[in-house]
Amino acid sequence: MECVSFSPLSRVAICGGTHGNEMSGVYMAREMQKQKVEKAGSVFITTVLANPRAVDACKRYTDTDLNRCFTDALLSSPITDSTSYELRRAQELNAQLGPKGSEEAVDLICDLHNTTANMGLCLIFYSLDWITMHIYKYIQSKITSAPVRAIQLDIPISEAYSLESVGKHGFAIEVGPQPGGVLRADIFNMVKEAVDLTIEWLQLFNSGSTFEGGEVEAYTLTKSVDYPRDPMTNEITAAIHPKLQDNDFKLLQPGDPIFLSFSGKTVKHEGEELYPFFVNECAYYEKKIAFHLARKITLTFPSVSVKKD
Amino acid sequence: MECVSFSPLSRVAICGGTHGNEMSGVYMAREMQKQKVEKAGSVFITTVLANPRAVDACKRYTDTDLNRCFTDALLSSPITDSTSYELRRAQELNAQLGPKGSEEAVDLICDLHNTTANMGLCLIFYSLDWITMHIYKYIQSKITSAPVRAIQLDIPISEAYSLESVGKHGFAIEVGPQPGGVLRADIFNMVKEAVDLTIEWLQLFNSGSTFEGGEVEAYTLTKSVDYPRDPMTNEITAAIHPKLQDNDFKLLQPGDPIFLSFSGKTVKHEGEELYPFFVNECAYYEKKIAFHLARKITLTFPSVSVKKD
Repeated sequence: MECVSFSPLSRVAICGGTHGNEMSGVYMAREMQKQKVEKAGSVFITTVLANPRAVDACKRYTDTDLNRCFTDALLSSPITDSTSYELRRAQELNAQLGPKGSEEAVDLICDLHNTTANMGLCLIFYSLDWITMHIYKYIQSKITSAPVRAIQLDIPISEAYSLESVGKHGFAIEVGPQPGGVLRADIFNMVKEAVDLTIEWLQLFNSGSTFEGGEVEAYTLTKSVDYPRDPMTNEITAAIHPKLQDNDFKLLQPGDPIFLSFSGKTVKHEGEELYPFFVNECAYYEKKIAFHLARKITLTFPSVSVKKD
Repeated sequence: MECVSFSPLSRVAICGGTHGNEMSGVYMAREMQKQKVEKAGSVFITTVLANPRAVDACKRYTDTDLNRCFTDALLSSPITDSTSYELRRAQELNAQLGPKGSEEAVDLICDLHNTTANMGLCLIFYSLDWITMHIYKYIQSKITSAPVRAIQLDIPISEAYSLESVGKHGFAIEVGPQPGGVLRADIFNMVKEAVDLTIEWLQLFNSGSTFEGGEVEAYTLTKSVDYPRDPMTNEITAAIHPKLQDNDFKLLQPGDPIFLSFSGKTVKHEGEELYPFFVNECAYYEKKIAFHLARKITLTFPSVSVKKD
């Protein structure tokens, strides 16, 4: 493949608190604001506490999940008296960091998240974005304290619902396991390292470095699995099986246990071999997701460099 | 010591959901209600979902912490329009399971809790109660999947603020680590085993078994340590140090690291050797407790048996 050139990536937004109880991003954003981190070499940095009302309440959200509000349809919907706090906030963020899909949008949005699942550090991104893949490869080559993986969501950008879709490029950094409302130093340091490496990569890119093309592995969402539920009450009747718990990204084969019911019965995986992730994520009980299943794919990407004037 | 005899312990209450986001107890109580577990041999079992409104909201509490409402003063305070939901509920529970300190109170209350701290399984109790100590020793001798410890709170029963203080005997079972709003099968099974063993012990006791006296180790709360905070904003400026995180009950010596600030500075433990517990418990951020410190003590208790008619 040829070397692909891009305009300089000079405006980056580091966002935390999109979910108000995911503490790594909350404290990362607060700390960067306190330290007045606004520029690193050629890179102008905007730090955003995305959902301050949810942060104050130490809840994921107050009215509705902010990180499902960034579709084109929702961002262009008229504000009325009954519009949720989070949709108002999404439109404010779109005005500040976008508008989504426009020339005025920031070059890169990096949105910081935590999960109760044992997922290590994951970059989550939409579609095929060479810049994001290069940053992913760079972070993966530098961080050794936990596995670094990529999750690709195959959703058209107009329907992409999360904050990072507002930037020209963007990804979420998802790190776990960490309980909601809890700040762990080890997880915080990993998030900080990933943010620092992202900014470092942007500086190297802007200064004229060529980054060689190559391949990366990524996980692409195939389907979601709900908990077994009581048909009358809709309450769950089983927990994630101890053999699946904490084993995100470990290949699940037909016959492997996935749930253990409260009366002691084991439910087994049926169908094809797939990779589980977001296993027992706290916020997904209400979304009726016990875990996601993914296929592993290989993504090939070209060399990239900055466009010379 | 002599053998101490007690009246039969025929009425036990198993309570869950006193904190609405601590899921082992919520599902344990629901499951026992669904299975209509009401009697085991000589033991009549009442199952209580203590704070249903907080359970529905999947929050620790809605107005105020229910498990701080069971002091004599609060239980006897008049209900007004401004009385919190939880204090009303505490008075209802006191009417159902107590009244606290009376002959009508149930013989034993076992209240089920979870923590985000790596505490294994702990029994928490007030003062010196031979029955509770015997049950503790019994559970400890049978459970091998996690460490089983006891925490003694040296508070007069009139000022004891938690639900189990309403029974003639009582203890909380605190199991972790488990994030709020998450149900782990391994933790659930441990809680179920402890409840089953408690009921088994009561049956053995009622049937005339003599339980030999002996000694147990327990941890007694000495003081609480808050996070370092910004004097202007009151926000925390450091997280639990990685060397302390997950090391509940590991002796903390002077000079051992306890906090790591966001700018990378280590704060060290000063003063005497003590045992940390409830390290990085989610719900204690708002109570301004980063961890508790305890002394280890040895409790001696006599043989017990049921009073013959």
